[in-house]
Amino acid sequence: MNPVLQNIKVVLVGTLYGGNVGSACRAMANCGLSELRLVAPSPDLTWAFAEQMAVHATGILEARKTFATLDEAVADCAAVVGTSRRGGLYRQHSSDPREAVPGLIETAAAAPVALVFGREDKGLTNEELLRCTHVVKIPSSPKCPSFNLAQSVVLLCHEFYRASLGPGPLPSPEEEVSPPASSKMRQTMLAHWREMLLETGFTDEARATHMMEGFGRIFARGAKTEADMRILMGAARQFRWAAGRRP
Amino acid sequence: MNPVLQNIKVVLVGTLYGGNVGSACRAMANCGLSELRLVAPSPDLTWAFAEQMAVHATGILEARKTFATLDEAVADCAAVVGTSRRGGLYRQHSSDPREAVPGLIETAAAAPVALVFGREDKGLTNEELLRCTHVVKIPSSPKCPSFNLAQSVVLLCHEFYRASLGPGPLPSPEEEVSPPASSKMRQTMLAHWREMLLETGFTDEARATHMMEGFGRIFARGAKTEADMRILMGAARQFRWAAGRRP
Repeated sequence: MNPVLQNIKVVLVGTLYGGNVGSACRAMANCGLSELRLVAPSPDLTWAFAEQMAVHATGILEARKTFATLDEAVADCAAVVGTSRRGGLYRQHSSDPREAVPGLIETAAAAPVALVFGREDKGLTNEELLRCTHVVKIPSSPKCPSFNLAQSVVLLCHEFYRASLGPGPLPSPEEEVSPPASSKMRQTMLAHWREMLLETGFTDEARATHMMEGFGRIFARGAKTEADMRILMGAARQFRWAAGRRP
Repeated sequence: MNPVLQNIKVVLVGTLYGGNVGSACRAMANCGLSELRLVAPSPDLTWAFAEQMAVHATGILEARKTFATLDEAVADCAAVVGTSRRGGLYRQHSSDPREAVPGLIETAAAAPVALVFGREDKGLTNEELLRCTHVVKIPSSPKCPSFNLAQSVVLLCHEFYRASLGPGPLPSPEEEVSPPASSKMRQTMLAHWREMLLETGFTDEARATHMMEGFGRIFARGAKTEADMRILMGAARQFRWAAGRRP
């Protein structure tokens, strides 16, 4: 068992078709991954199709974990990688998976990493993308840009499998000092910032979500460790205090 | 139309399942390919499934060419690339697709190149592999080495699509939206933050430099564009104002 690949979790959100769940399981097994998490799969999903497409990977299908929300599914993950084929407001910082994988492999050496795939018809919502620390877009032909869900899964998982074969880069000294922050800790930090931005009058309720995109983008790239989260939470607390509204 | 990709022909030999033919069409369209050749597909193949899985790529499905033998299907091709997951007599010279693709792209600039995929259950025969000028093996987990046919197609076609884009990472959409911030702009932003952290009482003069290392680290990784600098400078200004010390 490769411990780095063990830390890569495939998260399927709102999946409609059983065949895609099963194909995703097989693709995971082909790429040395083993943990599947489902977020609110469609109640109409046909599990018999999932089993049929999983072939030799029914073990992954049977061991799947199911969650009501994306937040719960990725609570223990230090990096949350959303997949998107679109541009737009929340997707401006999307990157090529091949560029993102080496850094994510480093993270996965120490903590769980979630690869998050959206619905067959609508992908991930903007709310869900806000939960992601990374957004990747698999390059595709502009004329026909949208991959089938299971095809996206195999393309992304295979990048990780391939990267895991090579001699991994040494962990950076910084990561030895402070462990990668969990998604839960990050969400707590962002919630503190949102409150603080409201209380200091930097934004109002109507624009708070839009404003948090900006900070979310900066902090997703820049704030990675528990130490980073503590400094940002401490700052938010202090700014609230300085604004005369001690939390 | 990319003329190199136009010269890449996908050849499916003895395919059993319509869903795989359709999924292969969609994967081809995603990767900018357009010509599908079938060699002796199973008479039991369900074309309705093929159409269903092709989605927006039914044009490729309808324009397919069918041949009785592999020899006929690849007669015009300058390179014939067989895919195999097994070792053995005819497969010893198999290579990693990522190693083989650059040379094959050069060939495809001048002449057709065939990517040949075998049957779902038995792959390509030794006779068929003898017709191939190249044999590639997509790396996979030894515990579960066999990819679904359509998954193999997307993994291999995507290597060609990516290689056709040329060397170097794709430009990220973000960089088109807001230009990278200059060092001067970054230093101005950091100076604003230092002042603000002092005025809000988050730090004092003695520890300010140490504290700015923490924020500097987060912002160095996370804040990259002029838009990022503006949001951070705006925040610092607002926190100073909220602290009752309008700058």
